[in-house]
Formats: sequence, structure tokens, C-alpha cells
Amino acid sequence: MSKTIEKAFGKALRELREKRGLSQEGFGFECDLHRTYISLIERGFKNPSLKTIIKLSKALSIKPSELIKKFEKHLGRIES
Amino acid sequence: MSKTIEKAFGKALRELREKRGLSQEGFGFECDLHRTYISLIERGFKNPSLKTIIKLSKALSIKPSELIKKFEKHLGRIES
Repeated sequence: MSKTIEKAFGKALRELREKRGLSQEGFGFECDLHRTYISLIERGFKNPSLKTIIKLSKALSIKPSELIKKFEKHLGRIES
Repeated sequence: MSKTIEKAFGKALRELREKRGLSQEGFGFECDLHRTYISLIERGFKNPSLKTIIKLSKALSIKPSELIKKFEKHLGRIES
């Protein structure tokens, strides 16, 4: 279970960012978060806060609940 | 905008907890979080992490995305 949640969130974020054709740097700029922080989240090293989740979803032009739904899908894959 | 996000999340959590007829103490026990921490979240003083959001939603027997959807409704009410 260690880092399962963080890894699932990271995979969801990476998938959505790449779908938009954004680099970590460009995406970080959109979110007002540093590129290295985006990289840490995507690699499953961070447990993001609600406010960060909102920043990320705004930059992806989706609702926070949609980002969380994508996370749930990846979590289901990792756990099964 | 100060604390708007935290307040909306707190209202959503309180509504869902009360709907289940749970006290802050009983709910805290279910989540493995202290009653005072539940109180701080509900009053809008905390920016919960993804892991905390998952703990809260498990104790409410709903998906994290459903808890976030409820938060979005409250956020819409506060912002409008």
C-alpha cells in the first residue's frame, strides 16, 4: 500500500497533462507550481492538498471531481 | 477568496457527516482522525490532503470523487 495513492494520482495527472500536449514546464507555468513539483507529483512522491488539486484541475480545464475520478481509475488498476 | 476553498469543503463534509447521523467524535473514530481535526476541517481551517480526503470518504462510504462533487456544489454557492 505504500505510496499507492500518490502513484495513482501521479499517473492520472501525467495522463491528463500529456493528453493536452503540455510539458511539465508549461503545465507548471499554467498551475503556478514549479516544474520539479509537478515531476514529484507525477512520480508519486507527493500527497497533494485540496488547494493543489484545484490548481491542477484548473490548469487542465476540468473539474476537481473529474481529476479525482481519473485518479480512482488508476487506483483501481494498481490495487487490482 | 481567503479560505473559500476550505470553507466549502468543511460545509460539504459537515453535511455528509450529519446526514449519516454521526457525531464529530464517532466520525473521527471511523476515519482514524481526531475529533478536533474533524472540527477544524468542518470550520474551514484546514486544507486537507488527498490521503485525508480518501480517509474521510471511506468513513462516509462514498467515493472521493463524490465528496469532491459535494464540495464543488458548496464552492459554487459561496462564490455566487
